[in-house]
Amino acid sequence: MELLSLRQTEDIAYITLDNLKEFNTLTMQLIGELDQLLKDIAAKREVKVVVIEGSERVFSAGHSLKEIEAGTETEVLALFQACQNLMRTIREIPQLVISKVRSVAVAAGCQLVAASDLAVASTEARFATPGINSGLFCSTPAVFLSRNIGRKKAVELLFTGNFMSAEEALQHGLVNRVVPPEQLDEETEKLAKEITKQSLNIIELGKRQFYQQINMEDFQALSYSSHVIALNSKHPDAKEGIRAFLEKRKPVWNDKKQAEQQV
Amino acid sequence: MELLSLRQTEDIAYITLDNLKEFNTLTMQLIGELDQLLKDIAAKREVKVVVIEGSERVFSAGHSLKEIEAGTETEVLALFQACQNLMRTIREIPQLVISKVRSVAVAAGCQLVAASDLAVASTEARFATPGINSGLFCSTPAVFLSRNIGRKKAVELLFTGNFMSAEEALQHGLVNRVVPPEQLDEETEKLAKEITKQSLNIIELGKRQFYQQINMEDFQALSYSSHVIALNSKHPDAKEGIRAFLEKRKPVWNDKKQAEQQV
Amino acid sequence: MELLSLRQTEDIAYITLDNLKEFNTLTMQLIGELDQLLKDIAAKREVKVVVIEGSERVFSAGHSLKEIEAGTETEVLALFQACQNLMRTIREIPQLVISKVRSVAVAAGCQLVAASDLAVASTEARFATPGINSGLFCSTPAVFLSRNIGRKKAVELLFTGNFMSAEEALQHGLVNRVVPPEQLDEETEKLAKEITKQSLNIIELGKRQFYQQINMEDFQALSYSSHVIALNSKHPDAKEGIRAFLEKRKPVWNDKKQAEQQV
Repeated sequence: MELLSLRQTEDIAYITLDNLKEFNTLTMQLIGELDQLLKDIAAKREVKVVVIEGSERVFSAGHSLKEIEAGTETEVLALFQACQNLMRTIREIPQLVISKVRSVAVAAGCQLVAASDLAVASTEARFATPGINSGLFCSTPAVFLSRNIGRKKAVELLFTGNFMSAEEALQHGLVNRVVPPEQLDEETEKLAKEITKQSLNIIELGKRQFYQQINMEDFQALSYSSHVIALNSKHPDAKEGIRAFLEKRKPVWNDKKQAEQQV
Repeated sequence: MELLSLRQTEDIAYITLDNLKEFNTLTMQLIGELDQLLKDIAAKREVKVVVIEGSERVFSAGHSLKEIEAGTETEVLALFQACQNLMRTIREIPQLVISKVRSVAVAAGCQLVAASDLAVASTEARFATPGINSGLFCSTPAVFLSRNIGRKKAVELLFTGNFMSAEEALQHGLVNRVVPPEQLDEETEKLAKEITKQSLNIIELGKRQFYQQINMEDFQALSYSSHVIALNSKHPDAKEGIRAFLEKRKPVWNDKKQAEQQV
Repeated sequence: MELLSLRQTEDIAYITLDNLKEFNTLTMQLIGELDQLLKDIAAKREVKVVVIEGSERVFSAGHSLKEIEAGTETEVLALFQACQNLMRTIREIPQLVISKVRSVAVAAGCQLVAASDLAVASTEARFATPGINSGLFCSTPAVFLSRNIGRKKAVELLFTGNFMSAEEALQHGLVNRVVPPEQLDEETEKLAKEITKQSLNIIELGKRQFYQQINMEDFQALSYSSHVIALNSKHPDAKEGIRAFLEKRKPVWNDKKQAEQQV
């Protein structure tokens, strides 16, 4: 692991994109390292939240135009499919993923923020999908961007290539919080800790359910979700959680081994 | 009807969830009563708008964790399927449904607001989907919540269990209006009356069309909607409405009996 | 071409709806003229952006109720299908379409704004879908309106028929910018020029990709988009754009003839 660094508290893993000299571009190498690291974290089940952060000066500049220029079309497709697999890993790991954005998140860097479950930005953060400026439309960033913010704003960002401020990103729904740079660490940890109090088993169940239902027709989604919640209701962590609620005490989760019950 | 009360003006039915000692939880009994009452209102076609309101201190606390704990998985599934049928009734009755939220709307109580066609909240109202705090992820509330507000905010509410203020609910699109508590009744009635001036037949037609098209691909939706509007154009209430518009007079609807023409 | 006027700069076509005496209603004639003009502009590939604007006093009042009243159901269906074809033309031409709204955009006039790729409004602009007031629910305007703004607000507009201010339209995502009337021309041109600096070939490719993926399930969309961007990466305009970026110079597009490479 050369391009990332990892530090871990009891319940939170902090992954730092750490290749500032290449602006934390999502090269094949960085994508591979990040994908593998997330899978390791998922398998170990030691933490409940993963925070992805960049450097002081750049969150991520997106893909490397040098790498794209040098590759054949087949190689470029392989790069984007590796990136797609990374997005799927983010979606499929049991942990929630929070992007913590201190500075600029561009193109696939912006996609990473959009594909995360949650995002916190500093007031100095900025977001753009400027591929079209170089004749390479941000087709892949468009996917999660347009599932976070409205159509008109997404078109504006994708076709002008202009930056959006952190405040705009908050208004349009790309991020959950915007705070001054000096409070970014603290505020992100605070948000993470609002999730680490939950059972990892139920975070996992909920994350799968949320993204499954979101692409369904309304009542298909509700029918599927009724089955999920009925099954969830007899999960050991639900039994403990409901008992604790009725007894007005804190629940004690048994959540850091593999869930025995799958929904 | 033990857990609800009903009062009715010429064009508006007000249903009050009236089981404060159990926090207006959506028990099997309350769900059954509400579903039946809505079906009766639909069949009678006397009103054009249904307002659902809670008590002074709680709109609804969601499902009863006691009832869920006591039930087998099969019984819990039956409870959620009854709730699903209630949501379908809200969708299928000809009247528009307005949730009027004075205080807290939690879990399935928040779902009820999200599944309503319109919502008005007092500045003191608050919204949460905190099931995950008790190990029971709000899978079913997630469905309409995530169809009212953006993904990032929905994830935040569902996985932290935290409350959202009325002002936030307005910004994110869960409610249409926020007013001081003492203006809540008046403002809700005012919104309702902006709808009761319309033909019930056309409210019914429009409601069905709106929710049908919303789950379709863009041009499939437009093609379907072209057929609906062409048929609508020769409905007796459209003929009267267009004539009235051209003659600069108020239309006289013939709308409180069963629509003869179905789209 | 009787009901429209056209002026063209090097890269931008300005189409003015110019039938003020009928409030720029989208009559069969106006729809036909606009559809044909857009197709001509698309075929010529001389411009990169099309701006659609109305008159000083009205953007467009929607369809003509007189025309709808006079027609048989079959004729009315033909009118709405012609309008649907116009919406498809807006979607399919290579150029981005900007609606510039100085005053009122009503019913199908509001639909035109919603179906445009971008929109700029003056502070005096107002938007409504008041068909239901005349018994003719705005089924077709509902389609793109509900794909620009949230459900609760869309229901409010469609069932009350009330106007929404320009400021609200901005907050809810129907328009990209709101500026004082005297700055409307300048601000719209400025936005257009942020797009005309791009390659028309890549605008075309991006526009197709954006709207294709938006109706797909998340990872189906990402998989499709990975193929699009890989192919895009070897397009002559991408090769030039990437080279220019790496050489820190402005790219020189070869973009006003038919793209040789189709995605």
